[in-house]
Amino acid sequence: MKDFASDNHAGVHPDLLEAIAAANVEHAGSYGADEWTRKAEATFREHFGAEARFFGLFNGTGANVASMDALTVPYEAAICTDVAHMNVDEAGAPERLAQTKLLLVEHTDGKLTAGDISRWEPKRDDEHHVQPRVVSITQATELGTVYTLSETRAIADEAHRLGMHLHVDGARLSNAAAALGATLRELTTDAGVDIVSFGATKNGALVGDAVVILNPDLAADFVFTRKQLGQLASKMRFISAQLAALLADGLWLRNASHANEMAQRLAAAVAEIPTVEIVYPVEANSVFARLPRQAIDDLLERLDGEHPFYIWDEADNVVRWMCAWDTSAEDVERFAAAVAESARTTA
Amino acid sequence: MKDFASDNHAGVHPDLLEAIAAANVEHAGSYGADEWTRKAEATFREHFGAEARFFGLFNGTGANVASMDALTVPYEAAICTDVAHMNVDEAGAPERLAQTKLLLVEHTDGKLTAGDISRWEPKRDDEHHVQPRVVSITQATELGTVYTLSETRAIADEAHRLGMHLHVDGARLSNAAAALGATLRELTTDAGVDIVSFGATKNGALVGDAVVILNPDLAADFVFTRKQLGQLASKMRFISAQLAALLADGLWLRNASHANEMAQRLAAAVAEIPTVEIVYPVEANSVFARLPRQAIDDLLERLDGEHPFYIWDEADNVVRWMCAWDTSAEDVERFAAAVAESARTTA
Amino acid sequence: MKDFASDNHAGVHPDLLEAIAAANVEHAGSYGADEWTRKAEATFREHFGAEARFFGLFNGTGANVASMDALTVPYEAAICTDVAHMNVDEAGAPERLAQTKLLLVEHTDGKLTAGDISRWEPKRDDEHHVQPRVVSITQATELGTVYTLSETRAIADEAHRLGMHLHVDGARLSNAAAALGATLRELTTDAGVDIVSFGATKNGALVGDAVVILNPDLAADFVFTRKQLGQLASKMRFISAQLAALLADGLWLRNASHANEMAQRLAAAVAEIPTVEIVYPVEANSVFARLPRQAIDDLLERLDGEHPFYIWDEADNVVRWMCAWDTSAEDVERFAAAVAESARTTA
Amino acid sequence: MKDFASDNHAGVHPDLLEAIAAANVEHAGSYGADEWTRKAEATFREHFGAEARFFGLFNGTGANVASMDALTVPYEAAICTDVAHMNVDEAGAPERLAQTKLLLVEHTDGKLTAGDISRWEPKRDDEHHVQPRVVSITQATELGTVYTLSETRAIADEAHRLGMHLHVDGARLSNAAAALGATLRELTTDAGVDIVSFGATKNGALVGDAVVILNPDLAADFVFTRKQLGQLASKMRFISAQLAALLADGLWLRNASHANEMAQRLAAAVAEIPTVEIVYPVEANSVFARLPRQAIDDLLERLDGEHPFYIWDEADNVVRWMCAWDTSAEDVERFAAAVAESARTTA
Repeated sequence: MKDFASDNHAGVHPDLLEAIAAANVEHAGSYGADEWTRKAEATFREHFGAEARFFGLFNGTGANVASMDALTVPYEAAICTDVAHMNVDEAGAPERLAQTKLLLVEHTDGKLTAGDISRWEPKRDDEHHVQPRVVSITQATELGTVYTLSETRAIADEAHRLGMHLHVDGARLSNAAAALGATLRELTTDAGVDIVSFGATKNGALVGDAVVILNPDLAADFVFTRKQLGQLASKMRFISAQLAALLADGLWLRNASHANEMAQRLAAAVAEIPTVEIVYPVEANSVFARLPRQAIDDLLERLDGEHPFYIWDEADNVVRWMCAWDTSAEDVERFAAAVAESARTTA
Repeated sequence: MKDFASDNHAGVHPDLLEAIAAANVEHAGSYGADEWTRKAEATFREHFGAEARFFGLFNGTGANVASMDALTVPYEAAICTDVAHMNVDEAGAPERLAQTKLLLVEHTDGKLTAGDISRWEPKRDDEHHVQPRVVSITQATELGTVYTLSETRAIADEAHRLGMHLHVDGARLSNAAAALGATLRELTTDAGVDIVSFGATKNGALVGDAVVILNPDLAADFVFTRKQLGQLASKMRFISAQLAALLADGLWLRNASHANEMAQRLAAAVAEIPTVEIVYPVEANSVFARLPRQAIDDLLERLDGEHPFYIWDEADNVVRWMCAWDTSAEDVERFAAAVAESARTTA
Repeated sequence: MKDFASDNHAGVHPDLLEAIAAANVEHAGSYGADEWTRKAEATFREHFGAEARFFGLFNGTGANVASMDALTVPYEAAICTDVAHMNVDEAGAPERLAQTKLLLVEHTDGKLTAGDISRWEPKRDDEHHVQPRVVSITQATELGTVYTLSETRAIADEAHRLGMHLHVDGARLSNAAAALGATLRELTTDAGVDIVSFGATKNGALVGDAVVILNPDLAADFVFTRKQLGQLASKMRFISAQLAALLADGLWLRNASHANEMAQRLAAAVAEIPTVEIVYPVEANSVFARLPRQAIDDLLERLDGEHPFYIWDEADNVVRWMCAWDTSAEDVERFAAAVAESARTTA
Repeated sequence: MKDFASDNHAGVHPDLLEAIAAANVEHAGSYGADEWTRKAEATFREHFGAEARFFGLFNGTGANVASMDALTVPYEAAICTDVAHMNVDEAGAPERLAQTKLLLVEHTDGKLTAGDISRWEPKRDDEHHVQPRVVSITQATELGTVYTLSETRAIADEAHRLGMHLHVDGARLSNAAAALGATLRELTTDAGVDIVSFGATKNGALVGDAVVILNPDLAADFVFTRKQLGQLASKMRFISAQLAALLADGLWLRNASHANEMAQRLAAAVAEIPTVEIVYPVEANSVFARLPRQAIDDLLERLDGEHPFYIWDEADNVVRWMCAWDTSAEDVERFAAAVAESARTTA
C-alpha cells in the first residue's frame, strides 16, 4: 500500500520519463535555448492565453520566491494567509531571498477573501510601513480547499483596485482545475491572476515547476530574477520536455482528477467512522481529519512506513492524508480499513 | 557534428537515465528520506572519506551559494579569482543570496596562489572591512587548467593558518581528477579542502549537483541552508540516484577522461594551424585559443548551429572550445578541419 | 500647548546639549575610540551589571535590526507580538537587513506571555521551517503597558529552556523602569534578558540609541554587525556623551518619571468624560482612548498643529496620546479640556 | 597639536552647534515634517538646482547604500574603483543591504575614466551576469584627488549613453568644489550627475549627511528606501538644521577651503624632505606620502596620540595625512617639523 503522506512521495509518470528520454538526443542549447523549451512555451500559451510567458524553474520554493521578486521591490510586501506555504514551509525564503515581507491574514478553510486585502490601506504611502503590492493565494489551498472562479475574480479585482498584483501559488493548480471543472485559463488569466507558480512535480514530474506570467508587463526582467535566485537549469530541455508533455494531451488533468477522486473516496470511506471528523471541505486531493490521539498513534504503528501520513496539528490531533496521481483505489480501501481498525481498537 | 559550446549542451548519459528509471518505483520519502539518498551518501563517503557529508542540490549556482552561506556570516567574505564563475557567471547570487562579498585576485592561468590570500590580513579585525573567511578555488578552473595537489595543499594550509576555510567549486572536479590521475579524495580531503561543490550535470547528469562537506564541523546546519536557498528537491531520490550511479562504478572518471582526451586531441589538431594560438595550458576539457577575428567570424558562419562555440573575450579574440562526455573523435576531427579551413580562407 | 503625538516630537534636554558641547573639544578618535565612549561604557556597566557591553547606534530601527542580526543566522526567526514596532513600524527592516523572519503572537494589552513561545516547537529541527531563536518583547510596550519583573523572568526562563535568547526593544525602557520602580538592571539583566535596544532619543537625546548586550557570549562580533548595518557613527563621542549624561545622574529616570506622571494625569482628567474610554492600562507615558469619531475629528480641528496626536486604529476609533519628558502639567490640562470640549460639543 | 588621522576626528563647528541649539524649541514634527527640514530642502535647491531633492540621513555609509538601493534592482550592479570607500570601507554594506554588486575598475590616482565603463557591455542583457546600472565616483577621491568638471561630464555622458546613472560619493564634495573653484551645481547637476551622497560630518557637522537626488525620476520612492535601511532620524530637525546652516552662508566652502589649504601647506613643507615622496597629486585635504618604514615608526612614536595618522598601505610604506576644517597652520608646522625630524633621525 502506498503512503498518504504527500503527493511528492509519488514517482514520475511514465509518460514524462518517456518525454525526458525523447529529449535526450545529441547536443542542445542550454538554459532554455532549445526546441523543447520553445514547445513548452507554445503549450503554456495554449493553456493560459496568448500573452502568457512560461519560465521553467526547479521547484515550488523557487517559483514562489521568484514570483515575489518579480512583483516587489524590497519595501513592498505580499498578503497571504497564515497557513500559506510561503509563510510556513519555505524556511523564510521569500523574506530572505526576495526581500518580501509577508502580511498575514487568518485563513478560513485555507482561504482569504477580497475583504481581507484592504486592512493595510490606512498605512499606504507611509514610509514606516511596508507597502502591500501582491496578494498571494494558494490554489488548491494548503488545506485541500479550492477558490471558486468568482472568489478569485473578486480578490483580483480588489487587488488591482488597490494597485496590487495577484499571485497564485499553484503547486496544485491542476487539482483545483479538476475540482472546478475549469480550464487553467479560466482559473487564472480570465479570473484576473497576474502570475502563477505552476506545479508539475506534485502532479507526476521528476523535477521542475514553472512560473507563468499572465500580465506581460511583469515579464521583462524575469530571466535575470530566475538566474540570480539560482533557479536556472542548465539542461533546461529536460524540465521543459516534462512540462510540455504534462500539458500537451491532458495528462495534467487526468493525474489531478484521479488524485482528487481518490481523496473523495477516502473521505467517503472514513466519514462513517464515528470518531473521525473531517475538518475541511474535501475539494482537491487531501483529507484533513481529527481523530482521537490514541487512534492516530495506533494507526501510525499499524502502518509500517516511515511517514505513512503527517500529523498536521499536534495540539489539535488533526492529520493530513494526501492522495497522489498514483494512489490506487485499493490503496484507499486498505488505508480506510486501517483507520477504521485503529479507531475501533482504541475506542 | 556536436557543438563545442559547453559541456552542458550534452545530454544525459544513458546509465544515469537508467538509474533514474530504476528509482521510479512506488512511493518514497521526499526531501532525501529515501534509500537512493542513503546510497549516494555511502558512495560519496567511499570517494571522499568517512567523514564526508553528501547533500544533493539542483545546480552549481545553488551549490556555490549554499557553500558560501554555510561558511560565512554576512560580514565575512570569500577570496576568489576575478574569472571565478562565482564572480562572473552567477549574476551576483553569492552576494545577494548568501550575503557573501567576494574579494578578487587577478588570476594566472585561471588560478590563484597561497601567496594571494594574505593580502587582506592588514584589515583583519577592523570593523570597517569585510573579514575574509573562505578561499574559493575552481577545479578544474574556468580556463581549463588544473591546480596540482601541492598547489591545493599550499592554499589550504595558508587559508587554515589565517583562520579561513577552503572551498572548491568543482563543477568540473572529475575532469581535474582525470587530468591529475588522482582520486577525488586525494584532490580534496587529503589536500585540506573543507567543502566542495561537486558537479554532476556537466559530466552526464540530467539535473543535480552536490555539496560535499569534508570538515564535519561545517555540516551541522546545512540542511537549513539548502532548504532556505530554494535548493531542496522534493523528489530527491532522482538526484541521488544519478549521483550514486555516476560515482559507483567509475562512470564519473570515464566520462571526464574522455572529455579531457577530446580536448587534448583538439588542441593537438589546431596547434599546427599558424594563426591559431592556444592561450592557456590544456589540462581539462576545454581549449582556449586566439584567432584572427575574421577567422572566428568565418568559422561561426561555417558551422551552422546557434552556439557552435563561445567567444570568450571579444576584445582579445579568444574563443573557448569545450568538449563533453559525448564529444566524439569524429566531432573533433571535423571541428579542427573547419578551424583550419576558416584560418586558411581568411589568412 | 505642546502636541501629544509622539515623544520624539520633543527636543533635546538642555543637559544633553550641554554634554555635547562639553565633548566638542579638539580632535578625538572616531568610531568610538574616545574618552566619552569609554565613560558611557562604564556608566552602562554600572546600570546593567559588570558584564554589560554598551554599543552606541543612531536609532531604534538600527538597534533592533542589529540585535536581530547578532542573535540569529538567516534561517532563524524572532517571536514577537503582532503590534511590535519591529513588525509594524520598521518597514520590513528586520527581515530585509538582518534576514530575520518574525513569528507573530497576538498581543494582550501589547504583551506576549511565556506560554506563547512554544507554539513553534513542533517544527523545531525541521528544515522546512524557520527556527525560532529570539523572543523580542517591547518594554514599555507599544500600547503603553509594562511587563512586570516576573512576567519578564517567566518569558526569559521559557525562552532559555527552548534555546532562545530574550531581546528587549527598550525604546521606552526608562519609562518601564519608572513605572515599576525598578532599576535598569532588575528590569533586564536580573530578569534574564540577553540583549537590549536602549532608547535615548525618545527620552531627551538629540540622536542616538544603544544596544546593551548582557549575555557576553553574544558580543564578540557586534562591532562588525553595527558597522555593516550602517549604524556606526564617525563622531561617536557625541552620541556617547549624551548617553553617559543621561544615565550618569538619574536624568533618564527623572525624564521618564515625569512623562509617565503626565500620562497618569491625562488619563485621570479624561476618565471622567463619559464618551471617552481608555482601552489599555496606562502604565508608561501614553494613553490610548476610544472616542466617537465625531469627537476625534472635532478635536483634531480644534487643535491646530499638523499632528496634535495620532489616530491609532482608524477602524476602531482609538487614538494615542503620548506624553514626553517636556510635556507640562499645563499642556495636559489644556489638552484634557479640549478633549472634554470636543466630546461635549459632538455628543 | 591636532592629529592628522582623519577629518572625522575634528569636532563640530560652533556655528552648527548653534544651529542645533536654535532648533531646540518646543515640539516639532518628527521624521522631517518640520520647518528646519523645509529650510534645508530650499537651501539644497539653491545650491544644486530647482529640481534637486534633499534627504537627510545619518552617515555616509547610509547615504551610499541608500543611493545604490534607489538606483538598482538586485540583479543590477555599480561600477566603481577598487579603492572606492563603498568597496573597501563599508564592510560589505552595499552588497548586503542594497543587494548591489560592485564591479571594480583599477584606479589611476583614485579615479576611473569614461573609457572604463564599457568593459562589461559585452555581457549586457545576458542573464548570467549582473547588469551595470550605476557608475559611482568619489569626489574628492579617497586618494585626495579631484575629478575635473570635464572628466565628470565625460563619465556622465558615457554612463547615460549606456543606460546607467552617475552617483557621486561626495563625502568630501565640498573639498572638491573648493579645489576646483566650482559651485556645487557645476560639479554635479550641470556635469550630468544623477545622485549625490553629500557629506557634512567630515566638514564640521555633529552627525548627518544627505542624499541629493538631481534626477527627479529617481526620487519617487526614496523615503521608503531611507526608512527601510534604518537611516531615518526621528528628530530630523537637528540634522536638517546643521545642513541648512552649513550651506546657507558659505560655511561649507570656508571649512573645505581651509582644510585644502592646510593640505597644500603640509605638502609644501614635507616636499623638501629628501626621503618623503608625495604619491598622489594633493588636490583636496589629504596628503599621501611614502616614507622609509623606520621614519614612519619613529614619527608614530614621536607623536603621542592614539592615531596621529594612518598607514595607508603597510606593504608600500604609504601614509595618509588628513587635514580638517579645524587644522591650524601651527598644527601643520609642528607636524611637518616632526616628519622632518623623524626623517633626519632615521636617515
